[in-house]
Amino acid sequence: MNFRAHIRVMPRDGLLDPQGQAVENALTELAFDGVSSVRVGRAIEVGVAADSLEDAEDATRRMCERLLANPVTEDFLIEVDPA
Amino acid sequence: MNFRAHIRVMPRDGLLDPQGQAVENALTELAFDGVSSVRVGRAIEVGVAADSLEDAEDATRRMCERLLANPVTEDFLIEVDPA
Repeated sequence: MNFRAHIRVMPRDGLLDPQGQAVENALTELAFDGVSSVRVGRAIEVGVAADSLEDAEDATRRMCERLLANPVTEDFLIEVDPA
Repeated sequence: MNFRAHIRVMPRDGLLDPQGQAVENALTELAFDGVSSVRVGRAIEVGVAADSLEDAEDATRRMCERLLANPVTEDFLIEVDPA
């Protein structure tokens, strides 16, 4: 079966995020009021062929641990849907 | 009220995505079988103060149109939750 994994890789809470800070400053300059705590990370979509949803989620988690996220500085969130 | 906007900015379908192609090649080299159609974009989280969920969604959409996404090459998806 084919699945589509949606992954977010975000800088860990508490770590500086200069890109997020730059976006927050730019939004404020553009007169968007009430904007706070901007964080910028990566959104990754992967097509995964697997026997079950559980297998697809497990494979996606291993991809994040091996390649897609830096375990020292980043957290990842996974959502897997049938394709 | 405070809301948290989760934004995905992804390269448009049909546009080349060299970063996604590089990730796909790397996953295949790491012996992840059954991986296809990898796309890499940006995940952005923004704290938004607004009077209602609709106002927060509307403000987030305008942020994407003004700053966060390139309308020629990228699509964006928005989810807004109460913070």
